[in-house]
This record gives sequence, C-alpha cells and structure tokens, in this order.
Amino acid sequence: TELELELGSSTQTSHRLLAYSDALLSIIATVMILPVAHTKIHPDQKLGESVQQLLLTKIAVYLMTFLIVTVAWAAHVRLFQVIELIDDVLALLNLACMMIITFLPYTFSLMASFPGVPFGIFLFSVCAVVIGLIQAVIVVYGFYHPHLLNQQIQVSENQNFYKRHILKIILRGPVLCFLAAIFSFFFIPLSYLLLGLVIVFPHLSRFITWCKTKIVGPREEEEASYSLETFSFYLSEPLSKERVEAFSDGVYAIVATLLILDICEDNVPDPREVGEKFHGSLLEALSEYGPNYLAYFGSFVTIGLLWFVHHSLFLYVTKATRLMGLLNILSLAFIGGLPLAYQLTSEFAEKSHNEIEAIQVSCVITFFASIFQFAIWTTALLHERETLHPFARYGGKEHAFMFAKLALYPCVSLGAFFLTCLLSEFSTEIFHLMQIVIPFAFLALRIFVRISLTVIKSVMSLSRRKVV
Amino acid sequence: TELELELGSSTQTSHRLLAYSDALLSIIATVMILPVAHTKIHPDQKLGESVQQLLLTKIAVYLMTFLIVTVAWAAHVRLFQVIELIDDVLALLNLACMMIITFLPYTFSLMASFPGVPFGIFLFSVCAVVIGLIQAVIVVYGFYHPHLLNQQIQVSENQNFYKRHILKIILRGPVLCFLAAIFSFFFIPLSYLLLGLVIVFPHLSRFITWCKTKIVGPREEEEASYSLETFSFYLSEPLSKERVEAFSDGVYAIVATLLILDICEDNVPDPREVGEKFHGSLLEALSEYGPNYLAYFGSFVTIGLLWFVHHSLFLYVTKATRLMGLLNILSLAFIGGLPLAYQLTSEFAEKSHNEIEAIQVSCVITFFASIFQFAIWTTALLHERETLHPFARYGGKEHAFMFAKLALYPCVSLGAFFLTCLLSEFSTEIFHLMQIVIPFAFLALRIFVRISLTVIKSVMSLSRRKVV
Repeated sequence: TELELELGSSTQTSHRLLAYSDALLSIIATVMILPVAHTKIHPDQKLGESVQQLLLTKIAVYLMTFLIVTVAWAAHVRLFQVIELIDDVLALLNLACMMIITFLPYTFSLMASFPGVPFGIFLFSVCAVVIGLIQAVIVVYGFYHPHLLNQQIQVSENQNFYKRHILKIILRGPVLCFLAAIFSFFFIPLSYLLLGLVIVFPHLSRFITWCKTKIVGPREEEEASYSLETFSFYLSEPLSKERVEAFSDGVYAIVATLLILDICEDNVPDPREVGEKFHGSLLEALSEYGPNYLAYFGSFVTIGLLWFVHHSLFLYVTKATRLMGLLNILSLAFIGGLPLAYQLTSEFAEKSHNEIEAIQVSCVITFFASIFQFAIWTTALLHERETLHPFARYGGKEHAFMFAKLALYPCVSLGAFFLTCLLSEFSTEIFHLMQIVIPFAFLALRIFVRISLTVIKSVMSLSRRKVV
Repeated sequence: TELELELGSSTQTSHRLLAYSDALLSIIATVMILPVAHTKIHPDQKLGESVQQLLLTKIAVYLMTFLIVTVAWAAHVRLFQVIELIDDVLALLNLACMMIITFLPYTFSLMASFPGVPFGIFLFSVCAVVIGLIQAVIVVYGFYHPHLLNQQIQVSENQNFYKRHILKIILRGPVLCFLAAIFSFFFIPLSYLLLGLVIVFPHLSRFITWCKTKIVGPREEEEASYSLETFSFYLSEPLSKERVEAFSDGVYAIVATLLILDICEDNVPDPREVGEKFHGSLLEALSEYGPNYLAYFGSFVTIGLLWFVHHSLFLYVTKATRLMGLLNILSLAFIGGLPLAYQLTSEFAEKSHNEIEAIQVSCVITFFASIFQFAIWTTALLHERETLHPFARYGGKEHAFMFAKLALYPCVSLGAFFLTCLLSEFSTEIFHLMQIVIPFAFLALRIFVRISLTVIKSVMSLSRRKVV
C-alpha cells in the first residue's frame, strides 16, 4: 500500500472498498428472504396452500432480487478488475452506485404486489439505468486518469478499444432496461421479457459463442481474435476468487444472524402473560419455546457447516471460472432460503399438520444448497490443472477427503428426505438426529475416509491376489 | 497460501475464517438495534416519554449486546494472533464458539424483560462460560500442535509460560460469569455488578497499570518485565488493523441495509387499499411515503459518508492501538443507532409533534459517531510516529485534508442541531438540506482545503511583511 500511496496524493488501493461493496451486496441479496420468512401461516391452513401463496409473490421477489443483485455484483467485479486503484471521487461514485442497488429490492416488492401496474417496472428500470450511467462515469473517469487502470490496459496501445468494449458491456443492461421502461406504459409483458433478458444475457451470449465454436470452429482472423483474447482475460473469464469468497461469506453470515433476530423478536415472553398463565415461572414459559431453540441451533449448525464445506473447497480452488461462479450463486440462493426452513421447522410448537412438509422443505433446501457446492467441485475437476491445487486433483492426497466432505450433506439430506417419507411418524426425531450427528460426522470424517480407503485397498489387493 | 498448504495436509491459513467471524460478530453486535427501531410510537404520545421507555429496556439490550460482543471480538482477535494457522478441528470449534456468541442477544432480551428473575442472567453466564471453555480448548489444541502457533511463540523457550498466561486471560471473564451465575440465585445485583466487571475489566486493569507506572515508576525487575513485554506485544497492544477494518465494515454494511428492509416491509401499499382510497392510482399511494424515501436516502448517505471518512482515516493508520480500538467501537455503537434515527425521521409523514426531537436525536447520533472518529485521529496523532503514515502526520501533505474530512461531520451535525433549536419552524428543511449538501462538500473538499491553505499562507506572509 505504501507504493500506491506514493503514486498520487489521493490514490488508494481498492481492497477495502471492494470488501465493503461485497458486504453490502451480499446482505442486500439475502435480506429479502425475511419478508418471505415473516409471512404468517395460519395453523389451521394446510402448508401446501400457503406455500403456493408465498411462491407467487414473496419468493419471486427474493429470487429476482438475488439474481439481479448477483448480476450487478458480477458487473462490479469486472469493473474493478479493470480499474485497480481508486481515489476519493471513485469511492464516492461507488457509494452512490451502492445506494441505488440497495434500493432495488423495494422496486421488486412493488412489482410483485402490483404486477399489472407499470410504475414498479418503470422505477426498477430507471434505477438500473442510473446504476449503468454511474458505472459508465466511473469507467470514463478511470480512463481519463490511466494510472488507476489495470497494469495490462495501462501499457496497451489501443486503450480506446478497451474503453469502448467495457462501456458496451456495462451499458448493455441499462439499454435493455431503458427499453423496458418505455414499453412498461404500452405492453407490460414485453417489459418483463426484456428484464429477464438482462439476467440471462451474459450466460446466453456465452452459450451462443460456445455453440458457434462447436459448429463453425474457432474464428480464424488472427488480429481480431488476439485482441479479444487478451481482453477476455479481464472481462469474461476468471472472477476474482477473493471477491467470490467475500460475497459468499457475507451471505452465510447474514443468513446465520437473521435467525437470532427472529428469536429475539418473537420468543421473549410477555411479563404479564408469564404472571397470569405460568404463575410467574419464567422457566415454564420458556419451555414452550423449546422447539424454537432446537430449530435455531439446528439451522445455525447447517449454515455453519455448509460454510465450512465452502471454505474447505475454496482453499484448494486456485481460480474461479464463470461457470463455477454461477453454480456458487445458485448454491447461495438456496442458502438464503434456510431462514424460511427455520421458520417452518420452528412452527412445530403449534403442533400443526405441517411437520412432515416443513421437514421436507428443509431437506430439499439443504440438498440443493449442498449439491450445487458439489457441482462446483465437479466443474473444477473438469479443468483441474487450471482450477485446483495439486492436492485436490485426482490422485492428490486430499482428493478422497474433499470428495467425502462435499458428498456428506447431499447424501444425508436426501436420506433424511426419503426416511421421513417412509417413517412419517418419526420425522421430527429423524430430522433432529440428523442435525446433531452431522457435526460429529465432520469431525470424524478424516478417520472414516482413511479407514474406508484402507479397506478398499485391501479388498482390491485381495481380489488381485485371487485373480493371480 | 501454497506454503501453508504444504505444512500439513489439513493446515490452513486463518484469513477467511477470521473474515467470516468478523462478519458474524459485527452483524450480531448491530442487529439488536432492530427491536429498538421497530418499537411502535403512538402518534399522540410525546416522543420524550416513549424514548425514556425505550431507554430502559431495548436500548439497554442493544448497548449491552454491542459491548459484550465487542469484548468477545477483541478476545477472538487476541486468540487468533496467538494461533496463526488453523485446521479442520479448530475451524469447527470456532464455529461452535460463534454459535454460542450469536445466542447472547437472546439472553439479554430475557434479562431486559425480566430484570428480577435469575434465569436470564444465569443463561447468559452459562453461555459465557461455555464460550470460555471452547476458547480454552482451542488454546490447548493449538499448543498441542505447535506448528499452528505464531512464529515467535513457536520458537520461544518458555511456551508453557505463554500457554498459562493466555489461558489466564481467556478464562478471567468466564470465571467472573460463573460466580455471577451462582450469585444470580441469591443476590441478583451482585451478579449484574460481576457482569459489568467483565466488560470494564480489560480497560480497568490497563488503567491501574498505567496509574502505577505514573506513581511508582516503571518496574525494575529486568527478567520479568522482559518476558511480559514480548508477551504484551501479542496480547495487550496493537489490534490487527485488518480485523478492525473488517469488523467496522460489517457494522457499516448491516446498518446501511437494515434500512431497505424496513422500507420493503412497511412501505409497500396494500393493493386493496390502493383501489379503495386512491382510486387505483399507485403513484398517488406512493406519494404518501415520500418522506420515508427521503429519510432512507438521507440515512444511507450519512452511513456511506461516515464509512468513507473511516476508510480514508484507516488508509493512513499503520497500527491500531487499544485506545483507538475502543474509540472505534464507541463510534460504531452510535453508527448502529442510525436506523433508530431513520425510523424517527421517517415518522414525519404522520405530522406528529415530534419533528424537532426526531431531527435532534439524528443530529446527536451523527455527532457522536463522527466525533469519536475524530477522536481516533487525535489519539493517533499523539503517537504519530508509530500509528500514522508520514503523509498524515503534522506537516504531511495530507494532514490538513484529513483534518477537514474528519471535522466536517461533527461541525455540520452540531450546526444543524443548534440551527433547529433557533429556527424550529424550518427544522425539516434544514435537516434535508444538510443531507443533500454534505456529499457535494466531500467531493469539493480537496479544493476548499487547497484554497483555504493558500489564503492562510498569503495572509501569514502579508502579516509577516507588515511586521518587517
């Protein structure tokens, strides 16, 4: 940092600005699960109906927010891979950008409550356009002060080409949103289609190029492909691993702490009620909430251990490709759904008919969160030379252990799901047993893996002997 | 990281574990402001009374949680300055520790609701004892696998002395809590006193040593002071600057995003109401919420800019002393109060009599948050050789600019406070004008400072000429 401070009186490294932005974006992406989780379910209603009600509005808001914020986050990562140093003006512009992004969930809430009114979609589009314009100003400012740029762009001869290309990528979304804003007054479905395109576009364009190269073969113009290749180094391919980790940490942290907030707001008994109903015995009043505490500790353990798996995985990941980033975001979207699972399992106290459904929803959410983590690992293995540390590759000494770590949660949650289907009477017991056993399973995993490896080896050597 | 991976198959750097712990702890410290902010104030009640009501329970819970969590955080920082590498067992033990810490706010809620019942204080003490025991296990585990320890302790001859000393520091709090748990059944005030001692103890013991050295003079036993000195390098003096930043970022990020959550839950109009009351015009219904949006953007700007000031300050801080850490935590405690200020200023819509009081509370909170930042700066200046980058010291080229940056918010919020006292009719206008003007003031600050420096210089040279 000393070196950067020397460069110009106000020039700074961007490290902390990015960490703060990651924290803001991850919290905003996740926090919209709270309105979902806070939706009151009547105890005499079947869970099926109410879940359908939820699905239509609040879950849609949560998922839309999550996806749009992650798109904005990915754009932010790209932008600050181009601009590596910042000064006060850029820091303030970035904060303005963050302010508009944190306002997006509100526009989604409006859209979900009033799907037929153009105003919600108009407001969202205006925000997106403003965000795009601020980011464009950041790019223009950066290229006007080239010492802030990435070293490789700084020394490049055709800076203008880079600038145009980056601006094109940044303004692609806002232009679509601008069109959506205009169409919102004439034909709303088209607006929604355009907004959907904003989310899908980066992946779609990539998929099309991939198809093209498969069908037509790689392009042959030497010059153009060269300049695009050096460029794609910054803008298409690897996401900064550090920022993927920071964003993920933010999501895990906020999800883990949303739970205690609910406990503190809902499960402190009313002093008057304690006096009347429980003859002044606080302990008796609190024992009513027993299942809530169990659900809290169970959810915290699940989130903590999924973080632990993520942490172990990324310890051996040397480079995060775009596909791995996408899978990570899908995993995080389900992690964000865990407070909903908590809310459902904590309703056990009211002895509704929904026990099994609640447990199964929890199992499904946990399963998808963990299976996408597993998918990151398998994707990394496909290009293991670039993406993984030697220890974690096929034949590496940590390979089997990593495999077991990542496979544990998908297997256990799937197992619990089917067990509750078969033994529906003991579903609660099965679920809590699962939550208690898993931490110890992780502690003893290394020993298990070592034992099973020795067993496999000895079995194989035995069978070889027999063959001989 | 490659090097650390080689050390042992499961040994890892602790960087990400610490970042995640910082995120969890900062969110938990701050999130208890939500129950405070969500307390409904009747529009016909005077704000004075209801604020007093709040003060007695919920604000007390918030402050107690904040202080206890920061004490736990400081202990965590110390602990992982001793243990520098981790493995899976330590990661899982740390997660268990985090789980108990996130449960603490609930015990405070119980204490605040039932101050006369021993159970709340008993539960808290039990949690604190469990946390202490887990941390003791972490220390023992670390010293059993010395390759995980800090390099300087690793090569030291009297490892056992270090181990005992660290265990003593870690178990000091839990022992007090254990006593508090026992006394909670006999004489509750004593329990509260013991718990208060846990928070004050580190600062108190430091203050006593400071007084001793002032009165008696520094100790003269060569040998003992030497071993204590090398030790205090880890445990008493500088906090890891990186972790102070990470913790602060977490608080700023969660406070900034709590606001939009309130907006999303409270300010989406009911479709039926829009149909009946506003003849189906969403825009008209939303215009009711105008002041809420203003309050939201105003609060976000305040938080964002206070983060910006903090970020600028710590860019030039090379080492964070304990006193600076304490001032930082006091500043953050007031930052955490800003959602309350938002909730108060957003009540303007209801045209209650509380406008001026609400604005004044906001000004006071902002003033204290920023004056403690200023205090960090002045404290750093006292030992500028150790704590500040040369640019920011007296006579450094950034000194005047830093001074202006840090003085802006205290001055403006104090000014706004007194202006609203004098011109009570225009208080709302003054407040909003302040919030709009400040970002531009920050953008133009460098120019202001340069101009005023030139003016001062020319005035001084003129006066010198006159003297000649």
